[in-house]
Order: sequence, then C-alpha cells, then structure tokens
Amino acid sequence: MKKRIVLALGGNALQKNGEATAEAQKKIAIKVGEKIAELANKYEVIVAHGNGPQVGNILIHEEQAATDKAPAMPLETAVAMSQGQIGYWLTQAVNNAFAKEGKNKKVVTIVSQVVVDKKDPAFKNPTKPIGQFYKESDAKKLAKANGWTVKEDSGRGWRRVVPSPKPVDIVEKKSIQELVEDGAIVIATGGGGIPVTRSKITKRLKGVDAVIDKDYAAEKLAELTKADIFVSVTAVPNAYLNYGTKDQEALHKVTPKEINHLKKYGYFKAGSMLPKIEAAAKFAEKPGRIGIITDINHLASALNGQAGTIIAK
Amino acid sequence: MKKRIVLALGGNALQKNGEATAEAQKKIAIKVGEKIAELANKYEVIVAHGNGPQVGNILIHEEQAATDKAPAMPLETAVAMSQGQIGYWLTQAVNNAFAKEGKNKKVVTIVSQVVVDKKDPAFKNPTKPIGQFYKESDAKKLAKANGWTVKEDSGRGWRRVVPSPKPVDIVEKKSIQELVEDGAIVIATGGGGIPVTRSKITKRLKGVDAVIDKDYAAEKLAELTKADIFVSVTAVPNAYLNYGTKDQEALHKVTPKEINHLKKYGYFKAGSMLPKIEAAAKFAEKPGRIGIITDINHLASALNGQAGTIIAK
Repeated sequence: MKKRIVLALGGNALQKNGEATAEAQKKIAIKVGEKIAELANKYEVIVAHGNGPQVGNILIHEEQAATDKAPAMPLETAVAMSQGQIGYWLTQAVNNAFAKEGKNKKVVTIVSQVVVDKKDPAFKNPTKPIGQFYKESDAKKLAKANGWTVKEDSGRGWRRVVPSPKPVDIVEKKSIQELVEDGAIVIATGGGGIPVTRSKITKRLKGVDAVIDKDYAAEKLAELTKADIFVSVTAVPNAYLNYGTKDQEALHKVTPKEINHLKKYGYFKAGSMLPKIEAAAKFAEKPGRIGIITDINHLASALNGQAGTIIAK
Repeated sequence: MKKRIVLALGGNALQKNGEATAEAQKKIAIKVGEKIAELANKYEVIVAHGNGPQVGNILIHEEQAATDKAPAMPLETAVAMSQGQIGYWLTQAVNNAFAKEGKNKKVVTIVSQVVVDKKDPAFKNPTKPIGQFYKESDAKKLAKANGWTVKEDSGRGWRRVVPSPKPVDIVEKKSIQELVEDGAIVIATGGGGIPVTRSKITKRLKGVDAVIDKDYAAEKLAELTKADIFVSVTAVPNAYLNYGTKDQEALHKVTPKEINHLKKYGYFKAGSMLPKIEAAAKFAEKPGRIGIITDINHLASALNGQAGTIIAK
C-alpha cells in the first residue's frame, strides 16, 4: 500500500522575483506539477499551498477598484478566490505532467473551509499584515470605517492586520480523504483554508476575516486524512540553526523533543521557519509519522532519508 | 437507489437588484442552499452555476487596478477565481442548511476545467461580451494591444467580446461522479467551467479566454456523471412561447422533437431561454432521462411532475 503524503507548498512557490502575471506563475507551476506527478508514482499525494502574494494582489485589486456596483470582496471570500486561481494552475500543471508520462490520473482541487475557534486568543491580537500599504491618516480612517485594526509595517507604511488563529477542523476532510483513497491527487486548504467559525450550538459555519497559517492548516489536514508523512516545502533544503550567519548549521535527523528544546532557545524565526518546524514536529509527535522540511529539488531524496530536515520520534 | 440530478443555477441566482456585496449574495445563497439540502433528502445532487455578474466584477477590479507588480489575471483564471468565490458561498450555505436539520452531509466544490475544441467555429466569431464598458477609442486601443475583439454593446458602450465554444469534456468528471456516489453534494463547472483546450497529440491542457454557456456545461456534466434528471433553474417557472406578450403560453410536458420544431420557428431567445431549452432537450433525447426548466420555488413540484417545463421522450 502506498504511503500518504501531505505537501505544504510555500506561498512564494509560484512567484519568483515578484513576477506576478498568470503566465509567469503558470510557468513555475509546470515544474512543481512535474515533481508532484513524480511523487504520485510512489505515494498518495495531497497538496496544500500558501497564497500570500496572490491573495495580496486580489485584495489590492478588489479594494482599489471597488464601486457601489462592483464592491470589494472581504478577505475570507478573497481566500476562496485564490483557492480557485492557484488550485486551477496547479491542477492543470499536474494534469499536464501526467499527460507527458502518457498517464491520465485524477487531479482535483477542493475549495476548503478551515474551522477556527472564536475564542482563539489571536482574535484579540491581530498580527498578520494583509493587502496594500496606506498613509497613516488613510489607514486610520479605513480602520474606523471598517472596524479594521491597522499597524505600521517595518517602515514601509501602514497596513491592515488580521488575526491568525489556529486551525481546529477542516469542513471538507472526509471528501478529501475519499478522493485520495480513490486514487486522486488532491489540492486542498489553499492559503491555509477559508477561515470559518462553527457555532457550538447550531453548528452553523460563518466566514471570518483572518488568515490561517498554511503549514498549520496542512498539518491539520495531514492528521485528519491519516497521512504518514508531512512535508513543508520551502525555499531552502533544510531547517537551520543560526541561519544566515557563519555558524549556520543544517538540521538533518531530529526528534520532536529536540525541536521543542531548540525552539525554547529561540532558534527559529516567527513567521518564517517557526510555523514550518512547529507543524512538522507536531505531526511527528505520533510514532510512525514523519515530518520533513526541505525544498522542492530535495523532496525525492528527503523522502529516501538522504536530504532535508527529517523529524521523527 | 436515489436518482441523480444536475441543477444548473442561473448566473443571476445569487444577485438580486444588482446587490453585489458578498453579504447580499451570501444571504440569497442561504435560501438556495436550503432548497439544495431539501432536494438531497430524495436525490443525489450535483450543482452547476453561472458566474456572469461575479466574473464581470472580478474582471473590472483586475483590469482597473492592474499594475506591473499586481497585474490583471486573464479571463480563464478569473473564471477559476469565481468558482472559488461562488463555490464557497454555496458550499457553506448547504452546510448550514444541513446543520439546521441536524445533519452533517458532505458538500464539496470542485474547481472544474471544461474542454472545448480549438476548431469550434465560435473561436472565429467571438460574440460574448465580458467585463467593463469602454469608449470606442479606448476599446480599439486595448483590442490592438491585447489581441482582443471589441464590439459596440446595445448603445451602452464598447466591450470586449470572447468566443463561446461548446463543451466537449470535463477534466474532473470522474472525481465528481465518485464524490456524488460517496454521498456528497457536489458543486462543479461553475461559470460553465474554466475553458481549456486539450491537444489531440500530447493531451496537454491549456486555458483559453472564452466563456462556456453554463447550461451546456451543466448538461455535459449531467451526461458524463450519468445523471437521470437535468434541471435548468432560472428566474421563471416555465419556458414559454411568445414570452412577455399577451399570447404568452407556458410549456408543460413536451418532447425533444416538439422542442426542436418550436426552435426552428424562432420561439426561444438566444442568450436567454434558448441555451436552457437546448440543454434540457438534448439531455432528454436519451430515453429515461428528463430535462426540466423551472425556477427554484417550483423545483420540488416540477420534480413531481406538477410544475415547470418537463421535457422527455
């Protein structure tokens, strides 16, 4: 029986050098698609992906060109739009990679809602900047008009910040699992998923303007779909200690316990390596499961234990 | 065994009086979701939907706010975005309708590519207006710069026109069928599907800027997923002869042959009732299958043979 893998592709995986046209992004998707198709020969594959640059541009377009007749879509709906956009590019890229090998395997993108908890402390402390930059006065006006929280972003201007709550469930989990069991490559929880809350009493779902970290969402997806391996595919071959300094040291085989120890000493950068390493280590807490951090070029050898940062008990 | 239905929801099904905010459209989706959930008690349900007003607004935003750093997405990708957007709203509405009944059934939106033929004569005669209105001089400049065809639209200004080719296949058909057989309500081929061509030799898929009629795409979906009933859900309870005149006459039970006869006499308006009646009649050509045209309020009684225009051999 094939082992089941969940890949979490970095939000920048489809954009290089800020080239944001559909054409440029599709070109990169072709290469990613070939790697996914290759992997599918040996594994059952579920693909999660980020959407940072894409949803950023959607929000900019929606907000800047909004009129009464064509109003701007809210963040949660913009995430859904980016799932359609990126999911389409990736699906087609994998379809075409299979066609190249003379195969016709099923590939399918699921529009995915990810449940977060209303009581998540993130809602009291929005930290994730999204959309365009504003002048301070404009930012404050918009904040007042729309109930936004705005913050100054690293000297580049003012931006809206939204909460980044933890994923607690995935609404479409059963269908995703059934599809992969039926032999499909499934693309799901794009951009960390469309953030929704679920009423404890009525069970009603409701979209919320928030951003779920795509590694945490992908790890949740891996758990819920009973995957064996979780891979956070990023821009570097390994997770490192002292990254970017002369003392830089690649992590090879480590345990979740060792990771927790290193975390405490502040070795991993929040908003960068930290969510990836936390997600991979969390997944690997359960015996028999493996969490990996590597780049797309080392993916195959990392799965053979020859590259990447491999976390297991 | 439950019969399988494909519903084709009109492109305006989620927008009333031009109210285009996400909030207004979600409110309408709630009612549509309740009808779908009700139907799912007796039938296997696949939902297709239009995207005219939604993709129109996406294109307006994309084009008006485009910059080098945040370039506009092409039409085919905008269709994918609208599938994410509308699919999310409908999925959540059906989820919540089930929650209201104390049920937790699977509901899932599939990002769908619909194959068209490169040799379709529609590519030589683009007729479908999309996106914003321009002044004649601007329209002609854009046409030259982007290779667009532009036309004057009923005295309201100039617009881009794109081909409207016929659907020949649906890339995700097998997964859609498996999902519905596994008990899910499936939302697919939104906006007529993302139009793609498939190379006869390499089998490679490639997006094309075109718009596929949502009724033709939904009928193709009904055929490919072995549905028993196809319903084009529109704004009126029936198809009519002499619609809007004092001689107006509702069609009740008719055969595909009678429809073809009426068609020849020009009884159905192109771009309005014609594609719905053609799709329903085509589906009903095969014995045992039924094509229906009605509105959402008469859906249940039409399925009992008590309302709507019912086409069968």
